[in-house]
Amino acid sequence: MKKFMDVHTGMHGVTQELLAQEHQKDLQIQDQEGVHFLHAWADPATGRGFCLSEGPNKEAVQRIHERAGHPADEIFEVSFEVE
Amino acid sequence: MKKFMDVHTGMHGVTQELLAQEHQKDLQIQDQEGVHFLHAWADPATGRGFCLSEGPNKEAVQRIHERAGHPADEIFEVSFEVE
Repeated sequence: MKKFMDVHTGMHGVTQELLAQEHQKDLQIQDQEGVHFLHAWADPATGRGFCLSEGPNKEAVQRIHERAGHPADEIFEVSFEVE
Repeated sequence: MKKFMDVHTGMHGVTQELLAQEHQKDLQIQDQEGVHFLHAWADPATGRGFCLSEGPNKEAVQRIHERAGHPADEIFEVSFEVE
């Protein structure tokens, strides 16, 4: 499994409720692509969103996001991480 | 305390060791600005890096990154998050 950070734009004015609702759409179908969404963050002022996931490849992550109705603008494979 | 996601570019070819080393530079001085770095991720292929932190404001986060020698390209206040 690889880890991915994807970036969403255009989420201006997003609320906690809306973020949770959209994320839930991913969670409901993620198993169909072997993807596991770990966390999502959003900045309502700039409309930027970030989503951390594990999965086989970027395309699988994007397919889930597309089917959930919110395709990512960019997806990065984050091979390295530190705490 | 607010939460921030910052984005770094130009990290092409970064290694796990280098990421840990650069992150350590932030950790060593973060207390001086009331910032707490939580996690960092990097994609060596695209040179993109992401850094999650808590702190009083974006400027404090950037001051630490600047003093550590790796200013962020963009910093977003991520007011909302879900797991």
